Amino acid sequence: MTTGVRRRMGVEERRQQLIGVALDLFSRRSPDEVSIDEIASAAGISRPLVYHYFPGKLSLYEAALQRASDDLADRFVEPRQGPLGARLLRVMGRYFDFVDEHGPGFSALMRGGPAVGSTTTNALVDSVRQAAYVQILSHLDVTEPPARLELVVRSWISLAESTALLWLDGRRIPRAELETQLVHDFAALMAVSAAYDEEMGALVRRVLADEPEDGPFGDLVDRLLALSAR
Amino acid sequence: MTTGVRRRMGVEERRQQLIGVALDLFSRRSPDEVSIDEIASAAGISRPLVYHYFPGKLSLYEAALQRASDDLADRFVEPRQGPLGARLLRVMGRYFDFVDEHGPGFSALMRGGPAVGSTTTNALVDSVRQAAYVQILSHLDVTEPPARLELVVRSWISLAESTALLWLDGRRIPRAELETQLVHDFAALMAVSAAYDEEMGALVRRVLADEPEDGPFGDLVDRLLALSAR
Repeated sequence: MTTGVRRRMGVEERRQQLIGVALDLFSRRSPDEVSIDEIASAAGISRPLVYHYFPGKLSLYEAALQRASDDLADRFVEPRQGPLGARLLRVMGRYFDFVDEHGPGFSALMRGGPAVGSTTTNALVDSVRQAAYVQILSHLDVTEPPARLELVVRSWISLAESTALLWLDGRRIPRAELETQLVHDFAALMAVSAAYDEEMGALVRRVLADEPEDGPFGDLVDRLLALSAR
Repeated sequence: MTTGVRRRMGVEERRQQLIGVALDLFSRRSPDEVSIDEIASAAGISRPLVYHYFPGKLSLYEAALQRASDDLADRFVEPRQGPLGARLLRVMGRYFDFVDEHGPGFSALMRGGPAVGSTTTNALVDSVRQAAYVQILSHLDVTEPPARLELVVRSWISLAESTALLWLDGRRIPRAELETQLVHDFAALMAVSAAYDEEMGALVRRVLADEPEDGPFGDLVDRLLALSAR
Protein backbone atom coordinates (compact mmCIF):
# COMPACT_ATOMS: atom_id res chain seq x y z
CA MET A 1 0.00 0.00 0.00
CA THR A 2 1.37 3.44 -0.90
CA THR A 3 0.18 6.74 0.50
CA GLY A 4 -0.02 8.41 -2.87
CA VAL A 5 3.06 10.42 -2.02
CA ARG A 6 5.83 8.82 -4.06
CA ARG A 7 9.24 9.35 -2.55
CA ARG A 8 12.30 9.05 -4.75
CA MET A 9 14.13 5.74 -4.34
CA GLY A 10 17.92 5.34 -4.43
CA VAL A 11 19.44 3.25 -7.24
CA GLU A 12 20.10 0.15 -5.14
CA GLU A 13 16.74 0.40 -3.42
CA ARG A 14 14.99 0.65 -6.79
CA ARG A 15 16.94 -2.32 -8.14
CA GLN A 16 15.96 -4.40 -5.12
CA GLN A 17 12.32 -3.37 -5.47
CA LEU A 18 12.32 -4.35 -9.16
CA ILE A 19 13.92 -7.71 -8.34
CA GLY A 20 11.22 -8.35 -5.75
CA VAL A 21 8.40 -7.44 -8.14
CA ALA A 22 9.95 -9.52 -10.93
CA LEU A 23 10.53 -12.53 -8.68
CA ASP A 24 6.90 -12.40 -7.63
CA LEU A 25 5.72 -12.38 -11.27
CA PHE A 26 8.27 -15.00 -12.41
CA SER A 27 7.13 -17.23 -9.54
CA ARG A 28 3.44 -17.09 -10.32
CA ARG A 29 3.62 -17.64 -14.08
CA SER A 30 6.13 -19.21 -16.44
CA PRO A 31 8.87 -16.57 -16.96
CA ASP A 32 8.32 -16.84 -20.74
CA GLU A 33 4.90 -15.30 -20.26
CA VAL A 34 5.98 -12.32 -18.14
CA SER A 35 6.73 -9.11 -20.05
CA ILE A 36 8.86 -6.12 -19.08
CA ASP A 37 5.69 -4.00 -19.44
CA GLU A 38 4.00 -6.01 -16.72
CA ILE A 39 7.01 -5.73 -14.44
CA ALA A 40 7.12 -1.98 -15.00
CA SER A 41 3.42 -1.69 -14.33
CA ALA A 42 3.59 -3.80 -11.15
CA ALA A 43 6.53 -1.71 -9.92
CA GLY A 44 4.67 1.51 -10.73
CA ILE A 45 7.39 2.83 -13.04
CA SER A 46 7.80 3.30 -16.78
CA ARG A 47 9.18 0.66 -19.12
CA PRO A 48 12.25 2.81 -20.08
CA LEU A 49 13.05 3.20 -16.38
CA VAL A 50 13.16 -0.60 -15.95
CA TYR A 51 15.76 -0.69 -18.74
CA HIS A 52 17.71 1.99 -16.90
CA TYR A 53 18.28 -0.52 -14.07
CA PHE A 54 18.43 -3.78 -16.05
CA PRO A 55 19.58 -4.10 -19.67
CA GLY A 56 16.88 -6.65 -20.49
CA LYS A 57 14.48 -9.27 -19.23
CA LEU A 58 17.17 -11.95 -18.97
CA SER A 59 19.31 -9.89 -16.59
CA LEU A 60 16.27 -9.12 -14.44
CA TYR A 61 15.32 -12.81 -14.50
CA GLU A 62 18.82 -13.78 -13.46
CA ALA A 63 18.80 -11.26 -10.60
CA ALA A 64 15.42 -12.60 -9.42
CA LEU A 65 16.72 -16.16 -9.66
CA GLN A 66 19.80 -15.18 -7.66
CA ARG A 67 17.56 -13.89 -4.88
CA ALA A 68 15.38 -17.01 -4.98
CA SER A 69 18.48 -19.24 -4.94
CA ASP A 70 19.88 -17.44 -1.89
CA ASP A 71 16.51 -17.76 -0.20
CA LEU A 72 16.28 -21.49 -0.93
CA ALA A 73 19.86 -22.19 0.15
CA ASP A 74 19.14 -20.38 3.44
CA ARG A 75 16.23 -22.74 4.08
CA PHE A 76 18.61 -25.72 4.06
CA VAL A 77 20.39 -24.39 7.14
CA GLU A 78 19.24 -26.32 10.18
CA PRO A 79 20.60 -26.38 13.77
CA ARG A 80 22.79 -29.42 14.47
CA GLN A 81 20.55 -30.65 17.25
CA GLY A 82 18.33 -33.68 17.68
CA PRO A 83 17.86 -36.73 15.46
CA LEU A 84 18.91 -36.43 11.81
CA GLY A 85 15.56 -37.65 10.52
CA ALA A 86 13.73 -34.86 12.36
CA ARG A 87 16.19 -32.27 11.05
CA LEU A 88 15.73 -33.44 7.47
CA LEU A 89 11.96 -33.41 7.85
CA ARG A 90 12.04 -29.75 8.95
CA VAL A 91 14.19 -28.89 5.91
CA MET A 92 11.75 -30.73 3.65
CA GLY A 93 8.92 -28.62 5.09
CA ARG A 94 10.77 -25.41 4.21
CA TYR A 95 11.71 -26.82 0.77
CA PHE A 96 8.08 -27.50 -0.07
CA ASP A 97 7.13 -24.05 1.26
CA PHE A 98 9.54 -22.60 -1.28
CA VAL A 99 8.28 -24.83 -4.10
CA ASP A 100 4.70 -23.93 -3.17
CA GLU A 101 5.46 -20.18 -3.20
CA HIS A 102 7.29 -20.28 -6.53
CA GLY A 103 5.42 -23.11 -8.28
CA PRO A 104 5.09 -22.07 -11.94
CA GLY A 105 8.53 -20.39 -12.01
CA PHE A 106 10.13 -23.39 -10.31
CA SER A 107 8.56 -25.78 -12.85
CA ALA A 108 9.58 -23.68 -15.84
CA LEU A 109 13.15 -23.39 -14.57
CA MET A 110 13.62 -27.04 -13.64
CA ARG A 111 12.02 -28.32 -16.81
CA GLY A 112 14.56 -26.26 -18.75
CA GLY A 113 12.42 -24.21 -21.07
CA PRO A 114 14.26 -22.41 -23.88
CA ALA A 115 14.07 -18.93 -22.32
CA VAL A 116 15.53 -19.97 -19.00
CA GLY A 117 18.45 -22.24 -19.92
CA SER A 118 21.32 -19.74 -19.86
CA THR A 119 24.73 -20.52 -18.43
CA THR A 120 23.96 -18.24 -15.47
CA THR A 121 20.67 -19.92 -14.62
CA ASN A 122 22.26 -23.38 -14.84
CA ALA A 123 25.04 -22.19 -12.53
CA LEU A 124 22.49 -20.88 -10.02
CA VAL A 125 20.54 -24.14 -10.04
CA ASP A 126 23.81 -26.03 -9.50
CA SER A 127 24.77 -23.70 -6.65
CA VAL A 128 21.55 -24.55 -4.81
CA ARG A 129 22.16 -28.28 -5.30
CA GLN A 130 25.69 -27.81 -4.01
CA ALA A 131 24.40 -25.91 -0.94
CA ALA A 132 22.04 -28.80 -0.17
CA TYR A 133 24.86 -31.31 -0.62
CA VAL A 134 27.22 -29.40 1.69
CA GLN A 135 24.54 -29.09 4.38
CA ILE A 136 23.76 -32.80 4.34
CA LEU A 137 27.44 -33.78 4.57
CA SER A 138 27.85 -31.38 7.46
CA HIS A 139 24.94 -32.94 9.34
CA LEU A 140 26.39 -36.39 8.69
CA ASP A 141 29.72 -35.12 10.14
CA VAL A 142 31.57 -36.13 6.98
CA THR A 143 34.30 -33.92 5.54
CA GLU A 144 35.76 -36.22 2.89
CA PRO A 145 32.82 -38.11 1.38
CA PRO A 146 33.53 -41.44 -0.29
CA ALA A 147 32.25 -41.72 -3.87
CA ARG A 148 29.29 -43.89 -2.80
CA LEU A 149 28.12 -41.35 -0.24
CA GLU A 150 28.41 -38.51 -2.75
CA LEU A 151 26.33 -40.55 -5.16
CA VAL A 152 23.58 -41.27 -2.63
CA VAL A 153 23.35 -37.68 -1.42
CA ARG A 154 23.44 -36.04 -4.85
CA SER A 155 21.05 -38.52 -6.42
CA TRP A 156 18.65 -38.10 -3.49
CA ILE A 157 18.74 -34.33 -4.08
CA SER A 158 17.64 -34.94 -7.66
CA LEU A 159 14.94 -37.28 -6.34
CA ALA A 160 13.68 -34.46 -4.09
CA GLU A 161 13.59 -32.11 -7.09
CA SER A 162 11.67 -34.50 -9.28
CA THR A 163 9.28 -35.31 -6.44
CA ALA A 164 8.58 -31.59 -5.97
CA LEU A 165 8.03 -31.11 -9.72
CA LEU A 166 5.66 -34.05 -9.90
CA TRP A 167 3.79 -32.72 -6.87
CA LEU A 168 3.34 -29.32 -8.55
CA ASP A 169 1.80 -31.06 -11.56
CA GLY A 170 -1.71 -31.41 -10.14
CA ARG A 171 -0.91 -31.62 -6.39
CA ARG A 172 -2.61 -35.00 -6.24
CA ILE A 173 -0.70 -36.15 -3.14
CA PRO A 174 -0.67 -34.11 0.11
CA ARG A 175 2.68 -32.37 0.39
CA ALA A 176 3.16 -33.38 4.05
CA GLU A 177 3.13 -37.02 2.92
CA LEU A 178 5.82 -36.31 0.34
CA GLU A 179 7.99 -34.45 2.85
CA THR A 180 7.94 -37.50 5.12
CA GLN A 181 8.39 -39.85 2.18
CA LEU A 182 11.54 -38.03 1.05
CA VAL A 183 13.07 -38.44 4.52
CA HIS A 184 12.31 -42.15 4.32
CA ASP A 185 13.63 -42.29 0.77
CA PHE A 186 16.89 -40.83 2.02
CA ALA A 187 17.11 -43.50 4.72
CA ALA A 188 16.23 -46.19 2.18
CA LEU A 189 18.82 -45.08 -0.40
CA MET A 190 21.49 -44.82 2.31
CA ALA A 191 20.53 -48.28 3.54
CA VAL A 192 20.68 -49.82 0.06
CA SER A 193 24.17 -48.39 -0.42
CA ALA A 194 25.19 -49.48 3.08
CA ALA A 195 23.93 -52.99 2.45
CA TYR A 196 26.55 -53.50 -0.26
CA ASP A 197 29.56 -51.46 0.88
CA GLU A 198 31.42 -51.71 4.18
CA GLU A 199 32.41 -48.04 4.35
CA MET A 200 28.81 -46.94 3.81
CA GLY A 201 27.70 -49.59 6.31
CA ALA A 202 29.94 -48.12 9.00
CA LEU A 203 28.66 -44.64 8.28
CA VAL A 204 25.01 -45.67 8.40
CA ARG A 205 25.55 -47.61 11.65
CA ARG A 206 27.14 -44.51 13.21
CA VAL A 207 24.21 -42.35 12.13
CA LEU A 208 21.68 -44.95 13.28
CA ALA A 209 23.26 -45.11 16.72
CA ASP A 210 21.98 -41.57 17.36
CA GLU A 211 18.53 -42.14 15.88
CA PRO A 212 15.55 -42.93 18.09
CA GLU A 213 14.01 -46.42 17.83
CA ASP A 214 10.88 -44.91 16.31
CA GLY A 215 12.81 -42.71 13.83
CA PRO A 216 12.47 -43.02 10.05
CA PHE A 217 14.94 -45.87 9.67
CA GLY A 218 13.55 -48.14 12.39
CA ASP A 219 10.07 -47.35 11.18
CA LEU A 220 11.04 -48.23 7.61
CA VAL A 221 12.56 -51.58 8.58
CA ASP A 222 9.45 -52.45 10.60
CA ARG A 223 7.19 -51.62 7.70
CA LEU A 224 9.33 -53.52 5.20
CA LEU A 225 9.19 -56.52 7.46
CA ALA A 226 5.42 -56.27 7.66
CA LEU A 227 5.23 -56.06 3.87
CA SER A 228 7.42 -59.08 3.31
CA ALA A 229 5.39 -60.93 5.98
CA ARG A 230 8.33 -62.54 7.77
CA MET B 1 36.57 -48.99 -44.72
CA THR B 2 35.96 -47.84 -48.28
CA THR B 3 37.47 -49.32 -51.41
CA GLY B 4 38.53 -45.97 -52.78
CA VAL B 5 35.79 -46.14 -55.37
CA ARG B 6 33.12 -43.73 -54.13
CA ARG B 7 29.68 -44.63 -55.26
CA ARG B 8 26.95 -42.00 -55.33
CA MET B 9 24.57 -42.20 -52.38
CA GLY B 10 20.85 -41.50 -52.57
CA VAL B 11 19.46 -38.56 -50.59
CA GLU B 12 18.02 -40.59 -47.74
CA GLU B 13 21.07 -42.84 -47.58
CA ARG B 14 23.34 -39.78 -47.37
CA ARG B 15 21.17 -38.21 -44.66
CA GLN B 16 21.31 -41.42 -42.61
CA GLN B 17 25.08 -41.63 -43.05
CA LEU B 18 25.49 -38.02 -41.89
CA ILE B 19 23.28 -38.65 -38.87
CA GLY B 20 25.40 -41.66 -37.94
CA VAL B 21 28.66 -39.75 -38.29
CA ALA B 22 27.25 -36.79 -36.33
CA LEU B 23 25.87 -39.00 -33.55
CA ASP B 24 29.25 -40.63 -33.18
CA LEU B 25 30.98 -37.22 -32.84
CA PHE B 26 28.25 -35.74 -30.60
CA SER B 27 28.56 -38.82 -28.36
CA ARG B 28 32.30 -38.65 -27.89
CA ARG B 29 32.61 -34.92 -27.20
CA SER B 30 30.29 -32.21 -25.92
CA PRO B 31 28.12 -31.19 -28.93
CA ASP B 32 29.23 -27.56 -28.40
CA GLU B 33 32.73 -28.57 -29.42
CA VAL B 34 31.81 -30.41 -32.61
CA SER B 35 31.90 -28.31 -35.81
CA ILE B 36 30.16 -28.83 -39.14
CA ASP B 37 33.64 -28.96 -40.72
CA GLU B 38 34.53 -31.97 -38.60
CA ILE B 39 31.28 -33.72 -39.43
CA ALA B 40 31.85 -33.04 -43.15
CA SER B 41 35.40 -34.31 -42.91
CA ALA B 42 34.39 -37.46 -41.00
CA ALA B 43 31.68 -38.15 -43.58
CA GLY B 44 34.12 -37.56 -46.44
CA ILE B 45 32.05 -34.81 -48.03
CA SER B 46 32.29 -31.04 -48.38
CA ARG B 47 30.90 -28.58 -45.86
CA PRO B 48 28.41 -27.09 -48.39
CA LEU B 49 27.11 -30.58 -49.10
CA VAL B 50 26.34 -31.08 -45.38
CA TYR B 51 24.23 -27.90 -45.55
CA HIS B 52 22.49 -29.34 -48.57
CA TYR B 53 21.07 -32.10 -46.34
CA PHE B 54 20.71 -30.21 -43.04
CA PRO B 55 20.11 -26.45 -42.72
CA GLY B 56 22.47 -26.16 -39.75
CA LYS B 57 24.20 -27.85 -36.86
CA LEU B 58 21.11 -27.74 -34.65
CA SER B 59 18.97 -29.68 -37.12
CA LEU B 60 21.72 -32.28 -37.53
CA TYR B 61 22.05 -32.47 -33.75
CA GLU B 62 18.31 -32.96 -33.38
CA ALA B 63 18.30 -35.72 -36.01
CA ALA B 64 21.18 -37.47 -34.22
CA LEU B 65 19.38 -37.11 -30.89
CA GLN B 66 16.22 -38.56 -32.44
CA ARG B 67 18.18 -41.64 -33.51
CA ALA B 68 19.81 -41.96 -30.08
CA SER B 69 16.42 -41.54 -28.37
CA ASP B 70 14.88 -44.30 -30.51
CA ASP B 71 17.86 -46.53 -29.74
CA LEU B 72 17.58 -45.92 -25.99
CA ALA B 73 13.81 -46.42 -25.91
CA ASP B 74 14.29 -49.75 -27.74
CA ARG B 75 16.64 -50.91 -24.98
CA PHE B 76 13.85 -50.56 -22.41
CA VAL B 77 11.85 -53.28 -24.14
CA GLU B 78 12.18 -56.51 -22.19
CA PRO B 79 10.28 -59.82 -22.52
CA ARG B 80 7.56 -60.23 -19.91
CA GLN B 81 9.08 -63.38 -18.47
CA GLY B 82 10.71 -64.21 -15.16
CA PRO B 83 11.04 -62.17 -11.96
CA LEU B 84 10.64 -58.39 -12.25
CA GLY B 85 13.91 -57.69 -10.45
CA ALA B 86 15.85 -59.73 -13.01
CA ARG B 87 14.07 -57.98 -15.89
CA LEU B 88 14.88 -54.55 -14.49
CA LEU B 89 18.51 -55.55 -13.95
CA ARG B 90 18.85 -56.52 -17.63
CA VAL B 91 17.36 -53.18 -18.67
CA MET B 92 19.80 -51.37 -16.36
CA GLY B 93 22.67 -53.20 -18.07
CA ARG B 94 21.52 -51.98 -21.50
CA TYR B 95 20.90 -48.46 -20.09
CA PHE B 96 24.47 -48.23 -18.80
CA ASP B 97 25.74 -49.62 -22.14
CA PHE B 98 24.03 -46.70 -23.82
CA VAL B 99 25.34 -44.17 -21.29
CA ASP B 100 28.82 -45.64 -21.67
CA GLU B 101 28.70 -45.42 -25.48
CA HIS B 102 27.41 -41.84 -25.51
CA GLY B 103 29.06 -40.47 -22.33
CA PRO B 104 30.12 -36.89 -23.16
CA GLY B 105 27.07 -36.21 -25.34
CA PHE B 106 24.73 -37.69 -22.71
CA SER B 107 26.29 -35.52 -19.99
CA ALA B 108 26.10 -32.35 -22.08
CA LEU B 109 22.49 -33.01 -22.98
CA MET B 110 21.28 -33.92 -19.49
CA ARG B 111 23.16 -31.07 -17.82
CA GLY B 112 21.31 -28.70 -20.16
CA GLY B 113 24.15 -26.79 -21.78
CA PRO B 114 23.11 -23.65 -23.67
CA ALA B 115 23.59 -25.12 -27.17
CA VAL B 116 21.45 -28.16 -26.57
CA GLY B 117 18.37 -26.85 -24.72
CA SER B 118 15.95 -26.40 -27.61
CA THR B 119 12.28 -27.26 -27.43
CA THR B 120 12.90 -30.25 -29.71
CA THR B 121 15.72 -31.67 -27.59
CA ASN B 122 13.63 -31.26 -24.41
CA ALA B 123 10.75 -33.06 -26.11
CA LEU B 124 13.06 -35.93 -27.15
CA VAL B 125 14.42 -36.30 -23.61
CA ASP B 126 10.87 -36.34 -22.28
CA SER B 127 9.84 -38.95 -24.87
CA VAL B 128 12.56 -41.31 -23.61
CA ARG B 129 11.44 -40.80 -20.00
CA GLN B 130 7.88 -41.50 -21.08
CA ALA B 131 8.96 -44.69 -22.88
CA ALA B 132 10.68 -45.89 -19.71
CA TYR B 133 7.59 -45.04 -17.65
CA VAL B 134 5.24 -46.90 -20.01
CA GLN B 135 7.49 -49.99 -20.02
CA ILE B 136 7.65 -50.15 -16.23
CA LEU B 137 3.88 -49.81 -15.85
CA SER B 138 3.42 -52.54 -18.41
CA HIS B 139 5.71 -54.91 -16.51
CA LEU B 140 3.84 -54.09 -13.29
CA ASP B 141 0.58 -54.96 -15.13
CA VAL B 142 -0.90 -51.58 -14.28
CA THR B 143 -2.99 -49.68 -16.80
CA GLU B 144 -4.37 -46.86 -14.64
CA PRO B 145 -1.56 -45.88 -12.28
CA PRO B 146 -2.55 -44.19 -9.02
CA ALA B 147 -0.78 -40.85 -8.39
CA ARG B 148 1.60 -42.43 -5.84
CA LEU B 149 2.76 -45.10 -8.27
CA GLU B 150 3.30 -42.53 -11.00
CA LEU B 151 5.39 -40.52 -8.55
CA VAL B 152 7.55 -43.47 -7.52
CA VAL B 153 8.18 -44.65 -11.09
CA ARG B 154 8.87 -41.21 -12.56
CA SER B 155 11.06 -40.10 -9.67
CA TRP B 156 13.01 -43.37 -9.84
CA ILE B 157 13.62 -42.70 -13.55
CA SER B 158 15.14 -39.34 -12.60
CA LEU B 159 17.20 -41.14 -9.95
CA ALA B 160 18.52 -43.50 -12.62
CA GLU B 161 19.46 -40.52 -14.80
CA SER B 162 21.29 -38.71 -12.04
CA THR B 163 23.04 -41.92 -11.00
CA ALA B 164 24.25 -42.42 -14.58
CA LEU B 165 25.44 -38.80 -14.79
CA LEU B 166 27.33 -39.06 -11.51
CA TRP B 167 28.87 -42.34 -12.67
CA LEU B 168 30.12 -40.69 -15.88
CA ASP B 169 31.83 -38.00 -13.79
CA GLY B 170 34.96 -39.98 -12.95
CA ARG B 171 33.55 -43.54 -13.05
CA ARG B 172 34.65 -44.05 -9.46
CA ILE B 173 32.12 -46.80 -8.76
CA PRO B 174 31.90 -49.97 -10.92
CA ARG B 175 28.88 -49.66 -13.17
CA ALA B 176 27.68 -53.21 -12.42
CA GLU B 177 27.30 -52.18 -8.78
CA LEU B 178 25.19 -49.17 -9.78
CA GLU B 179 22.99 -51.27 -12.08
CA THR B 180 22.20 -53.57 -9.15
CA GLN B 181 21.84 -50.64 -6.78
CA LEU B 182 19.23 -48.99 -9.01
CA VAL B 183 17.15 -52.18 -9.00
CA HIS B 184 17.32 -52.18 -5.21
CA ASP B 185 16.57 -48.45 -5.11
CA PHE B 186 13.43 -49.14 -7.12
CA ALA B 187 12.37 -51.82 -4.65
CA ALA B 188 13.19 -49.52 -1.72
CA LEU B 189 11.25 -46.53 -3.11
CA MET B 190 8.27 -48.77 -3.92
CA ALA B 191 8.47 -50.20 -0.40
CA VAL B 192 8.59 -46.75 1.22
CA SER B 193 5.50 -45.70 -0.71
CA ALA B 194 3.78 -49.01 0.04
CA ALA B 195 4.55 -48.66 3.72
CA TYR B 196 2.34 -45.56 3.95
CA ASP B 197 -0.43 -46.19 1.43
CA GLU B 198 -2.77 -49.17 1.24
CA GLU B 199 -3.21 -49.11 -2.55
CA MET B 200 0.57 -49.12 -3.05
CA GLY B 201 0.86 -51.81 -0.37
CA ALA B 202 -1.49 -54.09 -2.27
CA LEU B 203 0.41 -53.51 -5.51
CA VAL B 204 3.79 -54.22 -3.94
CA ARG B 205 2.48 -57.38 -2.24
CA ARG B 206 1.16 -58.62 -5.60
CA VAL B 207 4.53 -57.99 -7.24
CA LEU B 208 6.43 -59.57 -4.35
CA ALA B 209 4.33 -62.72 -4.56
CA ASP B 210 6.02 -63.49 -7.89
CA GLU B 211 9.54 -62.65 -6.74
CA PRO B 212 11.96 -65.38 -5.66
CA GLU B 213 13.07 -65.49 -2.00
CA ASP B 214 16.61 -64.58 -3.06
CA GLY B 215 15.50 -61.75 -5.39
CA PRO B 216 16.39 -58.08 -4.88
CA PHE B 217 13.63 -57.38 -2.39
CA GLY B 218 14.23 -60.33 -0.05
CA ASP B 219 17.94 -59.70 -0.28
CA LEU B 220 17.43 -56.06 0.61
CA VAL B 221 15.29 -56.83 3.66
CA ASP B 222 17.89 -59.36 4.90
CA ARG B 223 20.67 -56.82 4.56
CA LEU B 224 18.66 -54.04 6.22
CA LEU B 225 17.94 -56.37 9.11
CA ALA B 226 21.65 -57.11 9.45
CA LEU B 227 22.38 -53.37 9.46
CA SER B 228 19.84 -52.58 12.13
CA ALA B 229 21.17 -55.55 14.13
CA ARG B 230 17.78 -56.90 15.20
